[in-house]
Amino acid sequence: MAQNKNYTLKEISLLLDLSFRGDGSCEIGGIATLENANAGQLSFLSNRAYKKQLTTTKASAVIVEEKYSGLCKTNALISESPYLSFAKATALFVKPQIPEKKIHSTAQLHESVQIGDSISVGPNVVIEENVSIGANSIIGANSYIGNGVIIGEDCRFHNNVSIYHNVKIGCNVLLHSGVVIGADGFGFAFDGEKSIKIHQLGSVEIGDHVEVGACSTIDRGAIDNTIIGEGVKIDNQVQIGHNCKIGGHSIICGCVGIAGSVTIGKNCIMGGGSGAVGHINIVDQVQVSAMSLVSESILEPGVYSSGTWHMKTSEWKRNNIRFRQLDSIYKKISKLEKVKKENKNMDDF
Amino acid sequence: MAQNKNYTLKEISLLLDLSFRGDGSCEIGGIATLENANAGQLSFLSNRAYKKQLTTTKASAVIVEEKYSGLCKTNALISESPYLSFAKATALFVKPQIPEKKIHSTAQLHESVQIGDSISVGPNVVIEENVSIGANSIIGANSYIGNGVIIGEDCRFHNNVSIYHNVKIGCNVLLHSGVVIGADGFGFAFDGEKSIKIHQLGSVEIGDHVEVGACSTIDRGAIDNTIIGEGVKIDNQVQIGHNCKIGGHSIICGCVGIAGSVTIGKNCIMGGGSGAVGHINIVDQVQVSAMSLVSESILEPGVYSSGTWHMKTSEWKRNNIRFRQLDSIYKKISKLEKVKKENKNMDDF
Amino acid sequence: MAQNKNYTLKEISLLLDLSFRGDGSCEIGGIATLENANAGQLSFLSNRAYKKQLTTTKASAVIVEEKYSGLCKTNALISESPYLSFAKATALFVKPQIPEKKIHSTAQLHESVQIGDSISVGPNVVIEENVSIGANSIIGANSYIGNGVIIGEDCRFHNNVSIYHNVKIGCNVLLHSGVVIGADGFGFAFDGEKSIKIHQLGSVEIGDHVEVGACSTIDRGAIDNTIIGEGVKIDNQVQIGHNCKIGGHSIICGCVGIAGSVTIGKNCIMGGGSGAVGHINIVDQVQVSAMSLVSESILEPGVYSSGTWHMKTSEWKRNNIRFRQLDSIYKKISKLEKVKKENKNMDDF
Repeated sequence: MAQNKNYTLKEISLLLDLSFRGDGSCEIGGIATLENANAGQLSFLSNRAYKKQLTTTKASAVIVEEKYSGLCKTNALISESPYLSFAKATALFVKPQIPEKKIHSTAQLHESVQIGDSISVGPNVVIEENVSIGANSIIGANSYIGNGVIIGEDCRFHNNVSIYHNVKIGCNVLLHSGVVIGADGFGFAFDGEKSIKIHQLGSVEIGDHVEVGACSTIDRGAIDNTIIGEGVKIDNQVQIGHNCKIGGHSIICGCVGIAGSVTIGKNCIMGGGSGAVGHINIVDQVQVSAMSLVSESILEPGVYSSGTWHMKTSEWKRNNIRFRQLDSIYKKISKLEKVKKENKNMDDF
Repeated sequence: MAQNKNYTLKEISLLLDLSFRGDGSCEIGGIATLENANAGQLSFLSNRAYKKQLTTTKASAVIVEEKYSGLCKTNALISESPYLSFAKATALFVKPQIPEKKIHSTAQLHESVQIGDSISVGPNVVIEENVSIGANSIIGANSYIGNGVIIGEDCRFHNNVSIYHNVKIGCNVLLHSGVVIGADGFGFAFDGEKSIKIHQLGSVEIGDHVEVGACSTIDRGAIDNTIIGEGVKIDNQVQIGHNCKIGGHSIICGCVGIAGSVTIGKNCIMGGGSGAVGHINIVDQVQVSAMSLVSESILEPGVYSSGTWHMKTSEWKRNNIRFRQLDSIYKKISKLEKVKKENKNMDDF
Repeated sequence: MAQNKNYTLKEISLLLDLSFRGDGSCEIGGIATLENANAGQLSFLSNRAYKKQLTTTKASAVIVEEKYSGLCKTNALISESPYLSFAKATALFVKPQIPEKKIHSTAQLHESVQIGDSISVGPNVVIEENVSIGANSIIGANSYIGNGVIIGEDCRFHNNVSIYHNVKIGCNVLLHSGVVIGADGFGFAFDGEKSIKIHQLGSVEIGDHVEVGACSTIDRGAIDNTIIGEGVKIDNQVQIGHNCKIGGHSIICGCVGIAGSVTIGKNCIMGGGSGAVGHINIVDQVQVSAMSLVSESILEPGVYSSGTWHMKTSEWKRNNIRFRQLDSIYKKISKLEKVKKENKNMDDF
């Protein structure tokens, strides 16, 4: 665990804007779960199922809600939202992996590249013509930045990242290793014998504060641009097709696949492995469960799912045989109901 | 939008082999949708749902079918297949990102490498022994080409591409960034305690005019080769297992996973996120819907699906409880039918 | 096919610890299927469906069970487990692609890096501070190894691999091209307006004899480490979320997505494209079918599935309409049963 700096409880309470109870001079050097914490570590209670652990934890301090603070046998930081306070606390204890603020001698920058102050460009990075990189941005080793790409300030691209020509990336954007932005959207017209490529004339625009996970891919648009809104967080192995528009602060979990020309609203959550077919619209505040397929537009906020639950395969097979017969089962029932109704009518006589 | 060259309407009509109506000297510098087009841009109508926009579009010319050309208030290019003509038109307006036709000074080519005329090898590319690269092919920065790989003419590999030893790639093959071809197929034999690796002795053969999307992977065969037929188009994040054979001109959409030893016919379409279990056969002209699993061979052309539609999770849960009971529900109905039949028989007396 | 060395049948029988029948001096130079084998090649019968091919194969020798050896018209190697013996035989015929045991002049190793004997570091590899690499390990071209990474002996990393800081990797670990280990787990706390990043303070530990397929990603832990047990085999395009623990010798097939904090037992098999939601526990010896979702903990060994079988889309649609109505269908049946029961009670009078 890369935890290097110590804070007093009082310092943490000031940094996180929380009140504390107990020994303000107590030293904290890291974060752990209630169960695994040792002396010198900070913990938190966000799920009340674990509240019993407040009495046994060895943590030197715990972030808790006021109402549970009485149970806490150690120092407490009082928060209305311990999970959010925990998130902020991680920023204190992360050991940032910041490379030197220089352009490595093996990096290949075209003479037209424009760079802000204090940027870092790693070994073997290739940056083509007319690229612009904002101040304090970091481009990791072995990455490739195509012609005309614009990168804002305070961005961090990890290693082996590939950005195609003319992609526009905002400020404070974090791209993990293996990310590919701006590859061709998947568009062909069939001429009766073979697929004719639709050259992808659009590009990709990525808003500020976006994070994209390892090996995720975002395709360039066919005509207009693919657009990733501000604050969108994308996990690993995600595929976003050409001309998608993802609304601000939406969350796209791992292994999601979104076909072309899908519009997703703000503050949506696409669960892990979920998908959306092309040319549909999903409004704001929609949550899609893991591995569910959105097969038509969703016009009301809410939680949506498809598929079936797992069960023992033997049982699943028996039920699946009946799923295959479901329409005929329905018809049998309708017949039975008709008979019942006739019988009832008979009775009426 | 990377659109740089202007054509007159007449020039376009000649290049696309279409007749036109209106002002042949009208200048066109790009492509846009009917809705977003401005003066100087070409548009097209392929979905009649948008035909009303023919009367309002600001496009300087529109590709339309004869039957809708009367509605068009601007210049028209008459096509039997506007979508196909649009695809061909994109080739006129794409600004090709062609690197210099040279071998970059930082590229590492083994002395035995054989190269055709006018190839381009980007910075930091590593090319091992006995590789052969056909004329006009382009290998993007930071790519790796293993021993004995054969690459045809007019290929384009983008950046950070990895090709393992002995892979054979045809002509006019387009590989996007992050593609990995020829990694080991996933084969193990369990010895009761642990998995013993089956070394993958085969390779991969990729036909002419194949396109492979970003971060897609095609594994080498266990004994024989994995084979991707001519004109196959593969989207991003696709996994093709060892010893698969994909027939000519099939389309594999994003996030598809195909297990080992699957044979897919010609002109098939595997929808986004769909999959196929191992050792099965899918005939020509089969279309599999998004996120559907092909769990046994498909022997008749047609469209196939699995899974269920999305719905509100509350409703989905209620139905899923019943799915779990489906076999017992079926048995209840059979009992009711039996009673009905007995009653009917009783009535017959 | 990369097969270069010849063995006599007798040599093979000694190397695989099997008895043989026939001509021990017969020369074998490769492996093929019963159907495709030529003279000079070794084959095997592991699926009895192919036993007829024993009479027609041109293979110079076949690995068979004792009970089928009588059918074999050619030399035989007698094995209790022909598939396992075949796996071992592939090790004899693979032509290993071993790069030179040297540190390439273009590799960038920090002066603090500690290396064992006979390691190989390819061109353009970047290795940061305090990394340690065990004897005989191979790091492929254009890979990146972050600060403090520990790599055991006899590892093989292919090309364009990215390892983040402080990841610990055991001995005999095989990583394919495009693999990313130790990227940030996907963790955010919503503050009512935007997602606050939970910095990922943990790392990843990978046991001995692990294999990870092309473009697979394993995220670092939020607080504790993500742990991949000894002998785990992971196929291509797999995503393993932060704080997962995968038990020894489990098999994770292609395109699997495992959300955060999932514990999977020993000797499990996650079928291709399957998934697991976060914070659940799967015991030892569980097998999950292709594209199935594990949506809650599995506490008993066995085979589990979710989803439905593929069928023609027209039929599937009819059944899916009824799936949507399944709960109301169930209620209709309950009503019919009630009527039946009342009738029955009536009859009793």
